[in-house]
Parts: sequence; structure tokens; C-alpha cells
Amino acid sequence: MQTAVSWVSEADTLPHPYLLFLGDTVEPSYAKTAFGLRDWAPERCVGEFACEAATVTTGLPWLTPAQARAAGARAMVIGVANPGGHIPSSWIPPLIQALEAGLDLIGGMHTRLPAVEPLRQAALTLGRRLIDVREPPPNIPVATGAKRSGNRLLTVGTDCALGKKYTALALARAFRARGVDADFRATGQTGILIAGAGMPMDAVVADFAAGAAEALSPAAAPTHWDVIEGQGSLSHPAYAGVSLAILHGSQPDVIVVCHEPGRAHALGYPHYALPSIEETLHLALRLGARTNPAIRCAGVSLNTGKLDAAGAQRTIDEVAHRLGLPVADPVRGGAGFTALVDACLQRSAPG
Amino acid sequence: MQTAVSWVSEADTLPHPYLLFLGDTVEPSYAKTAFGLRDWAPERCVGEFACEAATVTTGLPWLTPAQARAAGARAMVIGVANPGGHIPSSWIPPLIQALEAGLDLIGGMHTRLPAVEPLRQAALTLGRRLIDVREPPPNIPVATGAKRSGNRLLTVGTDCALGKKYTALALARAFRARGVDADFRATGQTGILIAGAGMPMDAVVADFAAGAAEALSPAAAPTHWDVIEGQGSLSHPAYAGVSLAILHGSQPDVIVVCHEPGRAHALGYPHYALPSIEETLHLALRLGARTNPAIRCAGVSLNTGKLDAAGAQRTIDEVAHRLGLPVADPVRGGAGFTALVDACLQRSAPG
Repeated sequence: MQTAVSWVSEADTLPHPYLLFLGDTVEPSYAKTAFGLRDWAPERCVGEFACEAATVTTGLPWLTPAQARAAGARAMVIGVANPGGHIPSSWIPPLIQALEAGLDLIGGMHTRLPAVEPLRQAALTLGRRLIDVREPPPNIPVATGAKRSGNRLLTVGTDCALGKKYTALALARAFRARGVDADFRATGQTGILIAGAGMPMDAVVADFAAGAAEALSPAAAPTHWDVIEGQGSLSHPAYAGVSLAILHGSQPDVIVVCHEPGRAHALGYPHYALPSIEETLHLALRLGARTNPAIRCAGVSLNTGKLDAAGAQRTIDEVAHRLGLPVADPVRGGAGFTALVDACLQRSAPG
Repeated sequence: MQTAVSWVSEADTLPHPYLLFLGDTVEPSYAKTAFGLRDWAPERCVGEFACEAATVTTGLPWLTPAQARAAGARAMVIGVANPGGHIPSSWIPPLIQALEAGLDLIGGMHTRLPAVEPLRQAALTLGRRLIDVREPPPNIPVATGAKRSGNRLLTVGTDCALGKKYTALALARAFRARGVDADFRATGQTGILIAGAGMPMDAVVADFAAGAAEALSPAAAPTHWDVIEGQGSLSHPAYAGVSLAILHGSQPDVIVVCHEPGRAHALGYPHYALPSIEETLHLALRLGARTNPAIRCAGVSLNTGKLDAAGAQRTIDEVAHRLGLPVADPVRGGAGFTALVDACLQRSAPG
């Protein structure tokens, strides 16, 4: 019942296009997955559906599961998270409605879909799939450390949740806009839904984590780029091991350091001062050189969402001057972002 | 059926004493677990048992499962590994004989014991337990990074399989011989069998690996020492993430670097030159300082098993001179090992 997400085979990507399910959500911050899908995978989204109580909307057409199916949808994605990560009973009827309309269900909640008995029964009876993007594929190999062909970029953060996924998506999009053959490689749930495939790195057994990162970005054509979403931080008291496994297994040629100006402590860890951009950069280059001695830093991505335009530019200029590297906020774009993309794609860039 | 090994509660340690099962093994190197138990947990071992074809022996009394049960044994431990890690059909009758005699079975093979249908059936019928020391306990928390009371020592390696477990066992024994309240904390299968409890770090899901290391060495009395078995190496292309999670979660006050003189490459990774002792030491101190700024290195443990006595002493002296730290081979003991133990227990030691 629980179908693993394959990470390389195009044939095994998630069934799509999607109908986005918004539950009974009234708080926009709980619908980040739905918004991310709308913004980064519009070609995968035919519309949205929700319980009557919901007030949040993505702005996509409101479709019943049957209408969505008629419009080509193949799965309904649970596009909201709620505190605790469980599936409330009010969601069961609309979820079963989707199964009955011929859609598979895709979720990434803490509660696994097949653990909800009415869903398990309905999917079994109807021959539909319950797909969990938190479930790693079986038989992940131990890392070999062998050099692979093609080019790889990894976004590396000073902390969790400050723009590593967004930066990787923006860079992959910018690479493609320049005619470069590039794939965004997802390591977390939202990224996996956007890409239609990926590796839920946080759920992989520790001994296989670097191997999972190797499998996520397989050997490719010499001109191809994998742009890999980083996780956690090499200085995070809980997740540094995951970050190091991703760094070693990805063997990046290029890293981009991601940071949120003004964040003083690791999120949820008030006793842990955030490492500086410089410390993060040097640590990533030192540790990353173990599996790719040619690793270099192309620049810095700043999440300036809490600053006004003038403050953002001032901060960007200050960090660029301090580091002597391209610095940009991909959300704001502009000349700084163009320079960052240049530096990523240059064969011998600064850093 | 599959019983998780608890890692702190004394009440939940593995059932013992053990009867050691040697299968049909004719190759001594496959019986390392049995030898380790004989050498480090003799009080937990009442005897050995094997198929008729076996030629390997621990030297412990040969007992049938019924005789062992009468002598107080509570479990039979599979003390041998075979290539592939499966359970051959020739082992099934003696394993069932043990269950029938009233012993639980403890294994750490690749094949899980309950996956062998005749064993599952027999255990169910007889009300016996099939315990897998590769199975992590449920509900491991995410690491908090919070400082814990008590003292911790972690053995850190330049590679896998060169003496981290042996060094931790020898140090814990030496600490106790000096009247210091010390526990060996196991992170791998053999260590868990020896200690009767522990955390199979290689099987923990990546996001919880540092939390698992925190749980393994909980807050303790100010004079207590946990001596923690390290895994892998911070420079290992496949396992560095596990090593970093153990380092961060253990928050060691003291590290001892373990190395095998003459090993030039990571085991099984001929393209990866082994990091130097110095590089390993500096990397561990730099990364470990994130969760324990007071971390220090007490010295170096060398595995000189492939050298003669004179060559071993020469190597030990050379490394001690180069690093300015106590260096010893715990197997050979002597004044060097005494100095290493001194340095571990000193409040302000060199390094």
C-alpha cells in the first residue's frame, strides 16, 4: 500500500498533475506546501479543493475531485500541515471522495496515510494508491564515494528553514533559463512534491544517508547540473549528521551558502548562537573536499524577507563586500542574482 | 516479537547470562562476537554451544541449551557472523532447541530472527523472545543540545574497524579499576551484547541520530564517566554523518583518537587516503566544540596488532613525540596506557 518514491527513474515519479487539498485550514502559514506547489510546479497543479471550513486559498480554480479527474488530475496532494501532523476526522470524507473519483492520495504528514483505517480500506477497495513522500525507497546502498560525471550544486545553510530549498529551486530555474540542462533534486517533502521525485533524507537510516544522497544525483552528462536542496546545517546540534551525509554524498562542485540576516540563534535552540556565514562556508569547503577536492563556493543567498528594499540591498552589499563573493536574495532577483548564477556556472569562479 | 533494546533502564537490559552459539563456524575471524563476549563480559557467559561441524571454540564449557538453562542462562546469543549475514538452515534445529530449553534468542545478523518462520513459530508457541540488537528502541527524540551532568569520553577513529570499541572497553575497565564510577556505552552490536544494552547507531533514522547519542549517555552524577564507543570516522565517505551525530550527541569532555599504524586507505575505499591522526583530532575538536566547548583530546590509542613488540613501542614513541600527547596500545597496556588513563581523568590535561 505504502508506495516508495523512486528518486531517479522518470517512470516512477509521483502521479500528476495534482489537485491540491487544503483541509480546513484558516492559517496561511500551514499551507506552505500548497503555495510552494503553485509557485514552483504550476504545470503539475490543476486546482484546489478543501473542506467547507477552509478560508485559505492558492488562487487556483476550485475543483471537486471528479472535476479535477476530468481535467486530467491523477492524484490529490495534502497541501497543508497542521500542528501535530495528524489527519483530523473532518478530512476523511473529502479524502475518500478523491479516491472514489479515481485520484491517488499523496501525503507527507507525520501520520502515514495507510495508518488511517478508512483510507486504507477505501484505497484497497478502489485500487488506488496512498503515497507517502516521507517514506524512503527500499534498498538504498551504502555510499561508494566514487566520483560521478556531471555537475552538482548544493545549497548549504547556517540553519534550518531559511531558504535552502527556495534558493535551489531559483538557481535550477535560472540555469534552465540560460539553456543549461539542470534538475532540482529534492531532499525534503515539499521539494519532492514539487519535483515529483526525490529523497526524504530525514527519514533515511543513518548508515545509508550518504548513499541516499549519491543515489539522488546519479552520474549524468558532462554539461548537466543537479541543483540539490540542502538540509539542516553542519553546526546544528541535532541535524548536522544529516547535513554532512548530504554534503559527502552529493559531492558538490559548487556550494551556495544560505542565511537569514538577523537570525541570532538556531531555530528552536536559543542556547546555540548561529554560526557566521564565513564559518559555515569554510566548514562546508573543508568537509566537502573529502569527496570532491574541487569544491568551491560560488556565493551567498540571503533571505531578506523581513527587511524593506533599502535594508535588504544594504545587507546584501555589506555581506558581498565582507566576503568578496556574489550575494543575492533570489526572491528579489536583480543584478546580484544574475551575478550569483554567473559565478555558479563559471568553471573557475571566485571562492 | 522483535523486542527493542532499551538504552538506559537497567530493568530492560538484555536477558543474561548467555549461552554462546557458534553455528557451524570453522573460521575464527567469523566468531569475533563470541570472543568479545568471552573477553569483556565473562560474567555474562555460562558456556558455548554449536553445530557438529563447528571447529571454532571460545574455550568456555560446552553446554547443551538445557544444561545452560540449568546453570542459570537466560538467553542464547548468536556469537558468529557469516558472509551475507543470513541464518543457514543447519542452524534452525539448535536455535529451536535453545527456545525449547527456555532460552530467549539474541541476534544481530542482517536477517532478523522473526523473519525466519520456524523460529517465529517456535518462539510464539513457547512464549520466548527473539531479540535483535540491530533494532533501535522506538520514540528516539530529536537532540536537544542541552548540557548534561556527568563526564563523557568518546573514542574517535581515523577509520572503521581499528579499535574504537576495544579502546572504550579498556578505558572503562581501567577507570573502574581506579575506583571511578564508569559505564561503557555501546553503539554497535557486539558492544551492545557485551554491555547488555546500548544503541545500534547505524540503524537509527538520520534525523534522530544525535538524539539517540544523547539518550545513550543520559545525565549522571558529577563524578560519573560514560565511555562511549565511537563509530566510523568524520572523514569516512559513507559514515561520517553517523560519526558527527555521535560526536554532537555525546558532547564528550574527552576524546581519544584511535588509529591503526600502517593503514593507508579507508577500509574498502582504496581511493580514499586515511586522514592523519592530527587531522582527525583537530576535526573532532572543532566539530565537537559545537555541543561541548570544553572538549579536549587526552591522547591516542594505537592498534599495533600487526607489529612486533619492538616495532609497536617504536611507533608509539614516535606518535607520542610528534603529538606531545599520551599514546598507548590498550592491548599491550604498560606505562603508556597508564599515562593515557591519567590524561583522560585529569581535569586539565594536555591537548
